[in-house]
Amino acid sequence: MSPSSKVAVFGAGSWGTAFSIVLADAGNDVTIWGRREEVCESIRERHENPDYLPDVKLPEAITATHDPERAVHDADAIVFAVPSQSFRENLTEWAPVLPEVPMISLMKGVELGSLKRMSEVIAEVTGAGDDRIAVVSGPNLSREIANREPAASVVACADESVARRIQDMCHSTAFRPYTSVDVLGCELGGAYKNVVGIAVGMAVGLGFGDNTTASVITRGLAETARLATALGANPLTLMGLAGLGDLVATCSSPLSRNRTFGEKLGRGMTTDDIYASTRQVAEGAKSCASLHALAKHTGVDAPIAEHVEEVVAGRSTAADMMQAFIDRDTKAETD
Amino acid sequence: MSPSSKVAVFGAGSWGTAFSIVLADAGNDVTIWGRREEVCESIRERHENPDYLPDVKLPEAITATHDPERAVHDADAIVFAVPSQSFRENLTEWAPVLPEVPMISLMKGVELGSLKRMSEVIAEVTGAGDDRIAVVSGPNLSREIANREPAASVVACADESVARRIQDMCHSTAFRPYTSVDVLGCELGGAYKNVVGIAVGMAVGLGFGDNTTASVITRGLAETARLATALGANPLTLMGLAGLGDLVATCSSPLSRNRTFGEKLGRGMTTDDIYASTRQVAEGAKSCASLHALAKHTGVDAPIAEHVEEVVAGRSTAADMMQAFIDRDTKAETD
Repeated sequence: MSPSSKVAVFGAGSWGTAFSIVLADAGNDVTIWGRREEVCESIRERHENPDYLPDVKLPEAITATHDPERAVHDADAIVFAVPSQSFRENLTEWAPVLPEVPMISLMKGVELGSLKRMSEVIAEVTGAGDDRIAVVSGPNLSREIANREPAASVVACADESVARRIQDMCHSTAFRPYTSVDVLGCELGGAYKNVVGIAVGMAVGLGFGDNTTASVITRGLAETARLATALGANPLTLMGLAGLGDLVATCSSPLSRNRTFGEKLGRGMTTDDIYASTRQVAEGAKSCASLHALAKHTGVDAPIAEHVEEVVAGRSTAADMMQAFIDRDTKAETD
Repeated sequence: MSPSSKVAVFGAGSWGTAFSIVLADAGNDVTIWGRREEVCESIRERHENPDYLPDVKLPEAITATHDPERAVHDADAIVFAVPSQSFRENLTEWAPVLPEVPMISLMKGVELGSLKRMSEVIAEVTGAGDDRIAVVSGPNLSREIANREPAASVVACADESVARRIQDMCHSTAFRPYTSVDVLGCELGGAYKNVVGIAVGMAVGLGFGDNTTASVITRGLAETARLATALGANPLTLMGLAGLGDLVATCSSPLSRNRTFGEKLGRGMTTDDIYASTRQVAEGAKSCASLHALAKHTGVDAPIAEHVEEVVAGRSTAADMMQAFIDRDTKAETD
């Protein structure tokens, strides 16, 4: 994929739209598929997506359509950026019209029930081989990416040459992608950071300071690495941009949806209250359950995913979770 | 050391004083040694240290003296919390009166010239064996510790039974120490995070957002782990509270001296300007040079320590450093 490829992006939310800006800045023509025709029209006619990226002018090279077949017409690559839990259903609908080109997941979740990562869902639904399935993951808060603030990320594909072609495709002045072959590690890092982000948000909502949140982040990354390496990921991936980097960005930023969701739980709101108050999806509110189940299935201890699941489900409170976190017996750190 | 040990703490700065509160809360009698008699008098008579921990009432179990011999009288353990670069000179002066008890370093620096860690300086000056030398390091911002906000930390000593005794000694309701035998890893993590904290501060001072700072933190921890493991540390230590945890707390907190120092550099102040404006020491402004030299000596690449040293010395600017950070060629992440 040389500059001026044609790319279809399924998903007109904040990250799909922000990544479309990266692709356009890197010289590609982008067609966004959006569920709601009024959003598509706004992108196409007025070059803006006010619901998700207010006050951002989109490049001319981005257009949008509600028709999946038109979106993928002549596409050299396809990007997916829709909520994880409805992805399988959406993809099944789109699959008949998808050309045989590389497919890139921007999604950070693990499917409830099947416990599949998004790359696995792509493989199952489309039958594509792992040389056509990639993920992009890193410390990439959408709003900052849309503002062209400098950011780095990881493009992972089992076939490194494909990862390099996608790297070229999305390498702009502000966005620097690194390649990796560890799709599993990147996806687990991306999914888990949403859950840890909720836990950190709870601590913030309860009034705890930076020592506590730093401890939650540290324990959270250890928990992520434990599960990811048990499943076969490279531990270095979790130490990198798609692990530690993404986790720190999510947990530091007041812009992060998952941290914000946790803060509201910490201040005593219920999950239903929160859903009633915002349009944006906090992926971690679902992935906590699937990651906890995946850890259980793998025989790995995952106290943070477990506690977040309990609080999100209303079976426990944020205050109880933090007390449990603080009260554990002292011992050797790496026991 | 059972509860109600007697502990001497050398250093009446913010961390020495905050750790004295932890020790007092854990049931010990603490005598702080301070350089300035007026600070000692304030601690002794009015139970406060307004220069370093304003608005904090110190426990009755803390007293203070300017006399090293009185400070260590009957002491079961000695804690050091003075600036790293003057530690050898101070310790040489105190050495003749020190009893043969465990010595605990709270200091986070590497000596310029000798390139020694603080535990090595203790060993050289006092002749103590490694079963009498320990370090405490973790995500422990002094102000939060002084306010009894929950925090975790690592007590490291080559002799695990000594680490466990110190753990018991400083385990309070709010402060949870974990044990480790990796003194080197804890010290390197502690020293390096100050340097990375300065780099993150520079990015903040220049107006960069959370994606960029998360990338600097990620690259900074990789650089720390590279040097520490080359010197023989356990890589897991750097993934833990004394590595990642301490780094994230320092880089997240507007209270951090090193981050604040970097922010001022990022806004265009010179090192001399900054020193003229504050009493507090930013350890990283010295350790950048010693860590860069140590890395060079060890044959390890350390671009962040090198760049921070250049900017602190006035040979480069924060803007140049960030441009270099952003401009590196794209490649595989773990190359």
